[in-house]
Amino acid sequence: MTIQEIRSATVNADEERLLEEGLQSVEDAMLKVVNSDVTVLRDASQHILQAGGKRVRPRLLLLAYLAAGGTDVEYASPPGAAVELMHTASVVHDDINDHGVVRRGRPSVNAKWGRTFALLTGDFLFTAVYELMAPYGELNRDLAAAATGLVEGETLQAWAVKNNEFTRENYIRIIGLKTAALFKSAGSMGAKLANASEEVIEALSNYAYNIGLAFQIVDDILDIVGDEEKLGKTAGIDLEQGRGFAAVDGEAEDIMESVKRKLMSGNRLQEARDQAQGLVQMAIASLNVLPDSFAKQGLVDLANLIISRDH
Amino acid sequence: MTIQEIRSATVNADEERLLEEGLQSVEDAMLKVVNSDVTVLRDASQHILQAGGKRVRPRLLLLAYLAAGGTDVEYASPPGAAVELMHTASVVHDDINDHGVVRRGRPSVNAKWGRTFALLTGDFLFTAVYELMAPYGELNRDLAAAATGLVEGETLQAWAVKNNEFTRENYIRIIGLKTAALFKSAGSMGAKLANASEEVIEALSNYAYNIGLAFQIVDDILDIVGDEEKLGKTAGIDLEQGRGFAAVDGEAEDIMESVKRKLMSGNRLQEARDQAQGLVQMAIASLNVLPDSFAKQGLVDLANLIISRDH
Repeated sequence: MTIQEIRSATVNADEERLLEEGLQSVEDAMLKVVNSDVTVLRDASQHILQAGGKRVRPRLLLLAYLAAGGTDVEYASPPGAAVELMHTASVVHDDINDHGVVRRGRPSVNAKWGRTFALLTGDFLFTAVYELMAPYGELNRDLAAAATGLVEGETLQAWAVKNNEFTRENYIRIIGLKTAALFKSAGSMGAKLANASEEVIEALSNYAYNIGLAFQIVDDILDIVGDEEKLGKTAGIDLEQGRGFAAVDGEAEDIMESVKRKLMSGNRLQEARDQAQGLVQMAIASLNVLPDSFAKQGLVDLANLIISRDH
Repeated sequence: MTIQEIRSATVNADEERLLEEGLQSVEDAMLKVVNSDVTVLRDASQHILQAGGKRVRPRLLLLAYLAAGGTDVEYASPPGAAVELMHTASVVHDDINDHGVVRRGRPSVNAKWGRTFALLTGDFLFTAVYELMAPYGELNRDLAAAATGLVEGETLQAWAVKNNEFTRENYIRIIGLKTAALFKSAGSMGAKLANASEEVIEALSNYAYNIGLAFQIVDDILDIVGDEEKLGKTAGIDLEQGRGFAAVDGEAEDIMESVKRKLMSGNRLQEARDQAQGLVQMAIASLNVLPDSFAKQGLVDLANLIISRDH
């Protein structure tokens, strides 16, 4: 090995260790903030958090932080925990509205504790986000905007399904709000926590927004082709309720039949995969302004993983 | 009139005008932040906000701010809007769990838009709180703690009713969390926005916490003796579901009958009124550290109004 290679390998090992420390710190921060005296809130929160989940959002935040030159992962991990808890709050409420009974391979909070406590557990996870973020000043603007976007996206989706207006235009707007906005906040907060330049903040925000869009498109593909075992949640719910990319152009009378017909006759799934692939390529291109590092490579890998994942 | 009386009257008129301006600014801030592009969220939020309500919490925050020497009500009004929206979010979700169909004299969001949109509207109001508070730095700690307390109190209440553990001890804990914590945050934030001393912050926090307890006790009394017309919400729900101060000591088998028997035979209502009166007196005593002013008198009047109100 050349000296440069040795130095590079050492830096990589350091950054890899920091990422792992950061992810552990995210887990600790989440469990600490939900450790309520009110047993049912603590139990239900631990139930959903300890079921795992991919932790894509905090990983994204930490990688963005490290790629932008940050080194204090203890400082960056509470916002990482906050983005994951925001996502978790939304899935707990989602499972009420969608009657989802399996989530992350476990009974949903709704299935196990009933609607009243599921509603309150989701609220509690929202307030936990707020508590975690209280010390982070201006960063609250980023996450507050993402939180509002998330709720707006979920609402627009429910409205579009109910009113038979699940057009392609609405679909893009919905996934931008309900998924990509929170990804974007993870990217922008990671960059800002590292005191990055405006250029780097914008690059990491764009990267994150685009992989957020791709992530949701792939999720909707998996919702059609996946099975319950792989997904760990009640598969086909999104589809049954007329959501997902395939449910476009306003037809929703017998959406399942319509979608199946289209999948048989056309190439909608391939189109969607191509679109996700294009978004991931754009996302990776945004990273050009960053110096090479383990974390930058981690962001590239994360983007590619989003396309190749099967759950 | 003496010169001192004239000066005092002028100051009072200024402070009175500032309070009115602040309350108008709170209304404006609330309507602005819920002005979402997603029509159903905007409509449902406006529906519940424009139904009125007593605005006790923002009034408390603004009076605390003015009594502590603050003069920039534009600056203090977004946190005032935030405490009112936090309360509103919780009642929207409460009406889902309690099947409340009337709220503030109008159909509840749940009754008018259905459960899915009521759940999302409540979530949206929470995120509106978060957006309003994002610029307010450390104050977020106060409101985040109150928000968590609110959800914990609602949860503890639901749990106590379900498990037949609605003891007097649990009742005090519940109303401290679900009502007094948010009042306290209004008092403490008002004082902090005015850069008050630690002594004044503590006095206004204690004042607010105690009138919060009194407010909830009186609310529970009104829930028993009130009628739908006066209350503007589905009366008796709290009672039917085994909540409220009368439902103590663990009996909940046939709670309505049991409560009625007690009210006939005993003096529970009078005991509760006395307790609320004592809390209000303590609250008013806390104000001694403040110089006399229109706003201080306003806080005294607010405390007394809480006892004397009939809706």
